Amino acid sequence: MEVEKTGVKIMDIEVADLRVPTSDTLLGSDPFHLKPNYSCVYTKIKLSNGVQGNSVCFTVGAGNDWIAYGVKDISKLLENYSFDEFIENPGSTYKFINDHHQLRWLADGVNRMAMGCILNSLWDAWAKIEQKPMWKLLVDLEPEKVVDSIDWRYMEDALTREEALEILREKETEHASIESALKNRGPKAYSTAGWLGLTDEEIVKTIKDMQANGFDCFKMKVGQNLAHDKERLKFIREVIGSESRLMLDCNQVWGVDEAINYMNELSEYNPEWIEEPTARDDVHGHLKIAKSLEPLGIKVATGEQVPSPVVFKQLLQSGAIGYCQIDATRLGGVNDVMAVILLAKKYNVPVCPHGGGIGLCNMIIHYAMWDQIKVASHSDNQVVEYLEFLQEGVFNFPVDVKDGHYVAPQAHGWGLEMDQEFFDDHIYPTGKIWRERVQSGSIKFLP
Amino acid sequence: MEVEKTGVKIMDIEVADLRVPTSDTLLGSDPFHLKPNYSCVYTKIKLSNGVQGNSVCFTVGAGNDWIAYGVKDISKLLENYSFDEFIENPGSTYKFINDHHQLRWLADGVNRMAMGCILNSLWDAWAKIEQKPMWKLLVDLEPEKVVDSIDWRYMEDALTREEALEILREKETEHASIESALKNRGPKAYSTAGWLGLTDEEIVKTIKDMQANGFDCFKMKVGQNLAHDKERLKFIREVIGSESRLMLDCNQVWGVDEAINYMNELSEYNPEWIEEPTARDDVHGHLKIAKSLEPLGIKVATGEQVPSPVVFKQLLQSGAIGYCQIDATRLGGVNDVMAVILLAKKYNVPVCPHGGGIGLCNMIIHYAMWDQIKVASHSDNQVVEYLEFLQEGVFNFPVDVKDGHYVAPQAHGWGLEMDQEFFDDHIYPTGKIWRERVQSGSIKFLP
Repeated sequence: MEVEKTGVKIMDIEVADLRVPTSDTLLGSDPFHLKPNYSCVYTKIKLSNGVQGNSVCFTVGAGNDWIAYGVKDISKLLENYSFDEFIENPGSTYKFINDHHQLRWLADGVNRMAMGCILNSLWDAWAKIEQKPMWKLLVDLEPEKVVDSIDWRYMEDALTREEALEILREKETEHASIESALKNRGPKAYSTAGWLGLTDEEIVKTIKDMQANGFDCFKMKVGQNLAHDKERLKFIREVIGSESRLMLDCNQVWGVDEAINYMNELSEYNPEWIEEPTARDDVHGHLKIAKSLEPLGIKVATGEQVPSPVVFKQLLQSGAIGYCQIDATRLGGVNDVMAVILLAKKYNVPVCPHGGGIGLCNMIIHYAMWDQIKVASHSDNQVVEYLEFLQEGVFNFPVDVKDGHYVAPQAHGWGLEMDQEFFDDHIYPTGKIWRERVQSGSIKFLP
Repeated sequence: MEVEKTGVKIMDIEVADLRVPTSDTLLGSDPFHLKPNYSCVYTKIKLSNGVQGNSVCFTVGAGNDWIAYGVKDISKLLENYSFDEFIENPGSTYKFINDHHQLRWLADGVNRMAMGCILNSLWDAWAKIEQKPMWKLLVDLEPEKVVDSIDWRYMEDALTREEALEILREKETEHASIESALKNRGPKAYSTAGWLGLTDEEIVKTIKDMQANGFDCFKMKVGQNLAHDKERLKFIREVIGSESRLMLDCNQVWGVDEAINYMNELSEYNPEWIEEPTARDDVHGHLKIAKSLEPLGIKVATGEQVPSPVVFKQLLQSGAIGYCQIDATRLGGVNDVMAVILLAKKYNVPVCPHGGGIGLCNMIIHYAMWDQIKVASHSDNQVVEYLEFLQEGVFNFPVDVKDGHYVAPQAHGWGLEMDQEFFDDHIYPTGKIWRERVQSGSIKFLP
């Protein structure tokens, strides 16, 4: 069904605080986030042409409402905002929010995530109007449009507009065939098998299930206890064999030198990368770790909590990271993420997006497709994180993986439409799931 | 009057959103924050012994409520919290909040500022119990207590606990005489004369008034228009003379190379520093700018929006900044700021705190005293920002400057107690000042 494409206005913005009591089973636990309740801010933007743009922003429980509060406030700026203006120049809408002369003082974190909620919903509406999945909207964008979407203020010492245009045009003749190949077999996936909260038996089962589905890259959480980590790594290495790739993730639990020492102890298990070895914003620290681990063949990966495109810029231009783990909801939406993917290409760092949570896999697959078709223009060294939980019964268009590869999404937009019952039940704190357990979902400390 | 010092509990935490319509006069305007309404989150922590700890967190208007929202949420963690435990180990209370296993996902920005509101109020209560101004509480703290207050997780590649202890003990024999000298004549002050919104005549008057009060360091806002900046700089240089120190501030309006080019154009006016030449979190960018401007004798200063102690760490260890502009309400309270001041000492960078806003001068004077007595243990090269507005009629103990120097505060704690009428009138949006002008204080764009 065709909808009106011009003279369109934003009519209403709705925000919901959804939380899932994942802490019941310790799924998703890591050294810092011991009992996460996977949560998301769900934003719905209703346009005058009847189209609705949706987005999620992932958090681990408490604080989800802080972001929802911010989204509601930013929404006031967009009352009667012209959607034509957004489509005409998505970079101008980005600046309209990001450079707000008072809100800018709040810096990143909650503020940038809230901005991302709004922008990602607008992009979703745009893709739906064009009746394309998000990846296809992005692939079909003129290079000039991509470049105009990006805020270049702090970027040009690392990547200029002209360089970005060159990157987008460099393999123009190959884009169609890559797209066709990826529609047939999508980007390569990997997953976490070694959650902190799981028993050895549960880990073996997870790995066997994953292997049966074509996976040969596995991640394990480390950093709580060296002796335990060594034992578990030895065990996992035996289960997956020496040919499979093994990644480690400590979720920022270490200081810089501590990370180097700890990883020296774990190097015999031949890990491919250490993820988030130290503070999210420590560019120099990541660089020091990367240089120290280089002789061991271990690279540094990070991104899921990198708080701004400027920090990504520095990580990439300095050579501090060997894998660029873009996240779909940490930065200020599509505009920011496209900038980071282009930077990664320039500095020759594979884009390996951060998945999991709620809806992250559903979103990152679009970025991976865009990267592999239009930016990197190959699929030689990227892997895309995949976690199967919170898909069936949650999203109307769950992500799918076959033979260790994502299946290219076909639904229009991000494909984030939720099952209505799931949505209603998980609204915090009034939904059915929470009514009798409000306390366990609220801000509180572990006993 | 002596109060109970043990068995003390937190009874209640109150938070207020206060805003002042400073945009009426464009005081405080800069290239990004064109029409700021100086605002603060005011936090009151009531203890069971009757003592009340207060803090402010400065913002420029919209978004002030986001932080207040966060403070209210964090407060839930502290219901019936033992104040004895805070005094026993302020570092443990810091980690209790900062490492919250779900909230941590929100990263810095709103989250760290909200944490700072809580911690700074607790420190205020402690100083009041000890019946000392904050600077004196800090000066009298045992070095071990200072070091235990700091979160060392991400710091030790730049500064170890042992190095911090050495710094605090190095000039032990001189501390008493420095303290006595600073009680007589406090830290040297400087101020901004060249606000963007002022006319030439207003600037001349500001400078003359300041000179009459002993000032010989002046700051000017730049970055809107090169030709205009040159004209105004020439004019200000003439008014202040070649001997006075002149600082420039562009509030992050430039990209990295742009900053270098722009400052080359302004170097003939012999500025001492360029403040916030680019993005708040661009360590590499600041370093590149610092190296390029070194031959011109211009240093880089930053800090008021540096979002985390980890970013300060990198700026200091890399030599990216020549002046360390700690802010009193951007980071996670006293614990974070002490860490940064110790880092600055190790890397031999003068601490020149960021003042202005609401209550910042009232707080930074305590840090400047502590730095100059106990950490740097000299007053050779630090200047402390001072702005006279929002003092008289706002605070019961307004900061005072004589002969270009701050006067050492004597009130117990931070000295942030507010005039009750001012407080009530400026509550947003229900106070008298706002009832008829709610729109101009809310989030909105400039016409």
